Amino acid sequence: MEEYRIPVPATGGKATYRAGKLVCIGRNYAKHAAELGNAVPTSPMIFLKPASALIPSGSDIVIPPASADVHHEVELVCLIGTAGSHIPRERALDHVAGYAVGLDMTARDIQLLAKEKGHPWSVAKGYDTFAPLGNFVPAEAVSNPQDLSIRLEINGEERQAGHTGDMIFPVDTLIAYASTIFTLMPGDLLFTGTPEGVGPVREGDRLCATVEGLPPLEVGVRTS
Amino acid sequence: MEEYRIPVPATGGKATYRAGKLVCIGRNYAKHAAELGNAVPTSPMIFLKPASALIPSGSDIVIPPASADVHHEVELVCLIGTAGSHIPRERALDHVAGYAVGLDMTARDIQLLAKEKGHPWSVAKGYDTFAPLGNFVPAEAVSNPQDLSIRLEINGEERQAGHTGDMIFPVDTLIAYASTIFTLMPGDLLFTGTPEGVGPVREGDRLCATVEGLPPLEVGVRTS
Repeated sequence: MEEYRIPVPATGGKATYRAGKLVCIGRNYAKHAAELGNAVPTSPMIFLKPASALIPSGSDIVIPPASADVHHEVELVCLIGTAGSHIPRERALDHVAGYAVGLDMTARDIQLLAKEKGHPWSVAKGYDTFAPLGNFVPAEAVSNPQDLSIRLEINGEERQAGHTGDMIFPVDTLIAYASTIFTLMPGDLLFTGTPEGVGPVREGDRLCATVEGLPPLEVGVRTS
Repeated sequence: MEEYRIPVPATGGKATYRAGKLVCIGRNYAKHAAELGNAVPTSPMIFLKPASALIPSGSDIVIPPASADVHHEVELVCLIGTAGSHIPRERALDHVAGYAVGLDMTARDIQLLAKEKGHPWSVAKGYDTFAPLGNFVPAEAVSNPQDLSIRLEINGEERQAGHTGDMIFPVDTLIAYASTIFTLMPGDLLFTGTPEGVGPVREGDRLCATVEGLPPLEVGVRTS
């Protein structure tokens, strides 16, 4: 495995960013929180995925032997281009270098067991290939990240369809909040949560994830 | 904040490693699991901290306003020097470039609430400054990572005293196990768990963490 480098036609003369931490948000669409029987959070629910989970469009998600229930969660992903800590919400979007479509793959069976026991989520969310990521467009190409349709199809059939306007916490709030905990660095990625319709993937499936105006993300599924 | 680079007098001609993911192990000493009322795990309990939490010896841990109970957990830390996935236990230590002393600082109040609710641990474990890290020695300088005394003093008073031979899962097992989930990359760090005696730190405290034969890690504590 090579270091995951993110090509973005961004400002500042940098051709690529080296992927840093993946800051991910759970339960950021009310109907998705409800479909898993969870309350709507009163502050953003943050977890981390490792950069080693990233794969580009055209690759395969690998279902690990330890899970029989790996779920798709399609998400809008923001690439941090400028470092910041305690970033004011009004300036949060200035720290975004680009937008892409991502999938927060989740071993739901492992996650449910972890939740029951009060254990960390890192394994359920962190396996290799559990963070498929499409190509980025520069931030300037997206006039309003809260006005985008978001969809996932499996084998040509729609499974998730939502709108980023339905996020409980919009992108600027997420960046401001996350930056009170972690310094955000160039190359960090923010996965902004998934709309309703999550469900399992199976060997041989073809996933196509889209966010309006962004390059589609297409991945296959296989077992290890 | 600059990228965290790890100087190691290691083989292969690399002067420094860029810090990657921090793979951390919970409850890896039986007496520590017991002191927090937890069962001894039957497989390693893994969670992630972000590289943005790293600080070197001589720095200050910052207690965030959100927590009133930040705990010290002194640990042996391994630097991964060679990438690997599904690494056999017998060859696991060949992937280690160096050893250092680290602290897995934990907002215990935030973690306990997360455990009760089945939420992720990432915030409780991930704040900036929550991963103090001493200087590394090359792996060749440590003949047996399971035969080292490990201690933490606060203001000259002993708080934690253990021995790496008491790990439930030794370093080679941890590396082999973790590498079945995540590809381990050069610059990744493995925090191997803490012995008993964890407790809160307070503004003005001076912490001195030691593992036999490794450079000591000395940090202060302040509020933000």
